[in-house]
Amino acid sequence: MRLLTAVDQLFLLLESRKQPMHVGGLFIFELPEDAQSADCNFVYQLVQQMQTSKVPPSFPFNQVLEHLLFWKKDEDFIVEHHFRHVALPKPARVRELLMYISKEHSRLLDRAMPLWECHVIEGICPETENGPERFALYFKIHHSLVDGIAAMRLIQKSLSQSPTEPMTLPVWSLMARHRNQVDALIPAGRSAIRIIKEQLSTIKPVFTELIDNIKHRGDEDYVGTFDAPMSVLNQRISASRRIAAQSYEMQRFRNVADVLEVNMNDVLLAVCSGAMRRYLLTMNALPTKPLIAFVPMSLRSDNSASGNQISFLLANLGTHLEDPIRRLQLIHCSMNSGKRRFRRMNQAQVINYSAIAYAWEGLNVLTGLFPKKQAFNLIISNVPGVKKPLYWNGALLKALYPASIIIDGQAMNITYTTYLDKIEFCITACSKLLPHVQDMLALIEDELCLLENISEEKRLGLRE
Amino acid sequence: MRLLTAVDQLFLLLESRKQPMHVGGLFIFELPEDAQSADCNFVYQLVQQMQTSKVPPSFPFNQVLEHLLFWKKDEDFIVEHHFRHVALPKPARVRELLMYISKEHSRLLDRAMPLWECHVIEGICPETENGPERFALYFKIHHSLVDGIAAMRLIQKSLSQSPTEPMTLPVWSLMARHRNQVDALIPAGRSAIRIIKEQLSTIKPVFTELIDNIKHRGDEDYVGTFDAPMSVLNQRISASRRIAAQSYEMQRFRNVADVLEVNMNDVLLAVCSGAMRRYLLTMNALPTKPLIAFVPMSLRSDNSASGNQISFLLANLGTHLEDPIRRLQLIHCSMNSGKRRFRRMNQAQVINYSAIAYAWEGLNVLTGLFPKKQAFNLIISNVPGVKKPLYWNGALLKALYPASIIIDGQAMNITYTTYLDKIEFCITACSKLLPHVQDMLALIEDELCLLENISEEKRLGLRE
Repeated sequence: MRLLTAVDQLFLLLESRKQPMHVGGLFIFELPEDAQSADCNFVYQLVQQMQTSKVPPSFPFNQVLEHLLFWKKDEDFIVEHHFRHVALPKPARVRELLMYISKEHSRLLDRAMPLWECHVIEGICPETENGPERFALYFKIHHSLVDGIAAMRLIQKSLSQSPTEPMTLPVWSLMARHRNQVDALIPAGRSAIRIIKEQLSTIKPVFTELIDNIKHRGDEDYVGTFDAPMSVLNQRISASRRIAAQSYEMQRFRNVADVLEVNMNDVLLAVCSGAMRRYLLTMNALPTKPLIAFVPMSLRSDNSASGNQISFLLANLGTHLEDPIRRLQLIHCSMNSGKRRFRRMNQAQVINYSAIAYAWEGLNVLTGLFPKKQAFNLIISNVPGVKKPLYWNGALLKALYPASIIIDGQAMNITYTTYLDKIEFCITACSKLLPHVQDMLALIEDELCLLENISEEKRLGLRE
Repeated sequence: MRLLTAVDQLFLLLESRKQPMHVGGLFIFELPEDAQSADCNFVYQLVQQMQTSKVPPSFPFNQVLEHLLFWKKDEDFIVEHHFRHVALPKPARVRELLMYISKEHSRLLDRAMPLWECHVIEGICPETENGPERFALYFKIHHSLVDGIAAMRLIQKSLSQSPTEPMTLPVWSLMARHRNQVDALIPAGRSAIRIIKEQLSTIKPVFTELIDNIKHRGDEDYVGTFDAPMSVLNQRISASRRIAAQSYEMQRFRNVADVLEVNMNDVLLAVCSGAMRRYLLTMNALPTKPLIAFVPMSLRSDNSASGNQISFLLANLGTHLEDPIRRLQLIHCSMNSGKRRFRRMNQAQVINYSAIAYAWEGLNVLTGLFPKKQAFNLIISNVPGVKKPLYWNGALLKALYPASIIIDGQAMNITYTTYLDKIEFCITACSKLLPHVQDMLALIEDELCLLENISEEKRLGLRE
């Protein structure tokens, strides 16, 4: 039995029927070559292995809430409470898969059981004609159990780097072999009181610094303003989610960044910003002042899971500017400025950054420091990616998308990650406030093409 | 805009993440003969028609909550918020279908939209080898919008009695042609204040009468006791549901009733009681005192939807008795006694009977009349059935099951109805408190066989 930390509590308190506080990872696989005949029931076998496994779930998948005060080991674990196996009716494209994920991501987890769910979805059509059929894994886990970055990493680590390694254990039991990493991500061994003390002591200073940063308006020359406008993104949300996701070639972003002499991350933000501008224009809802994004930044230099260092900054997205180059330059300046970047955070602050990101309104009320202010319009975050191909019992992972949390006042979240040579975008939005948010994906493509054309012109000397 | 009635309010207030207050109807269809080739996409066509229909939803499917005070017409109706189309992976038996329904029945509706959902589930295997493949419609609607009996009837009325009538409108737009019946079920035209006054004025007397009935212990000779024991059914529930459903030949119940000289409804209750007794024995949780069921009784003599008359009574299920005949006789006495039957209720009381059934604890607290008492252990209700075969665009309806509501303190509900020559049982239960509740279906079959054997012996004169 472990005491809930202050942040665990916060995520449970913030949760409501309109505002589930879980994250989700969507993983799309291709059937292995030897499993592509109509008779082969590869997914059925996989599911059978998972459903009939006698190996108990490992930490943290075995933890259940006790009176909203403690985590304890669930002694009544029944796999069918956590597992779903469905198929999509033909013709099932990724679009239909995302509709399924949208509905499932809208749904609250049952607090009487460990707070996670695993879905296996089969019958997704091949990516290319005559290609192998696909299936998907959607894994959903509560933010009080593990944060989004850790969740994506847990699943990734449960996959194999070998196309021939058989994996007969369910995902939730596999983690044991990575116990060290899990411990590093979730400081379970430390004294509960010390953790709570540390966390409470760090939320307020970080929050104050964030407010201080917003209030400070000295450097309008290079970033314009951090005075986030009211927008359609910043209203009360409904309980319904829409998940939109797509992969884009990473090299395309890199090429633009190289030619235009900015960072790839600037190009990513600029593309999001341009798409957002167009999307809001179609809704006739573009604020005259630029949108401000809250951007968590990983400062990790190596690939180890422990010793994470995360910083975050407020980025002026320049959505008021029509010219894509001026917008990109503004974002570049905004991102590069050390002045606007928060100092490196210690361990407890790292754990709390997401609490600050999601609990803005709650903390605002709590501290009374900045009551009427919109701190930022949306969170755009970058989850550490994977460079090597991953396999599940021989099935190649083709794409992975991180679905996130939205809250009242923050109706859209954009999270991206990388896998192999792709950037994997995932947009989580309130489907009532932001209808057809999947249109953002085509708009991202349009913006990227625009920047590619401009950089091509520049490379050929046709443009300054 | 219509003011919410007191009962609408009650159902919204009683709802929590653990306790959704919607009912659901599961309808299983067989593909029509001319749609059974592998190339034919009958269900796909049906779904396309539903998704692309421009006909707006009709009353009450177009009603959305406004500040939890009013119903108003939803001007932003988007069909994809209410509609799901999934398939089940092979081999998909009714068991797998019920797992899907269980998960979906556990899920809260989004209050930002009209409170209903329609699921079309395809890929269910044939009932018999070489038979036609099946598909299902699961329709879920909030009890504040329409009660369970009315919901089942609305869907039934949207189906056709003709195997050749094409039905190109979605279910939720079809109701218009039955507007008269809807009006009769939902008194929308009457003054809101009058309705609220009437309803409030009737809840307390009916409740008092119910309590009075439980308190009264004069007639122990024929029903034993109405002092409902504490049981595993009467604990706090989790958010997870299990729906178990099966059809049984009606004639089997009728034969037993005829030979043993009781009503068919007594046999139905006796079979439930016996199954419950065995189920609780396997959990080592059978109370020494008999379980008491709350049994709503329709007093309608004709088939019209208007002029409903509903009564309800408390039935002693005799679960303490091992002998099935003694149990059946006790139930028969208990059901037959006019003394324990509530008097016919007026219109407002009819609307409120379900409020009383579900809001026992709430009303208990509200009135303070009977604070520590378990009124009854479970609700066993009988939804009016259908005698003629129904079709959906030519597809024959094979079975229909009414999924119900459970609440804290009432972890199981049994609802049955009739269709053609079948009794359609549907059990709704908390899957955490009552694991493997689907075992009840086989136990019902066992109990029915037992009574059949006994009545066969009696018929042959081998038994008194």
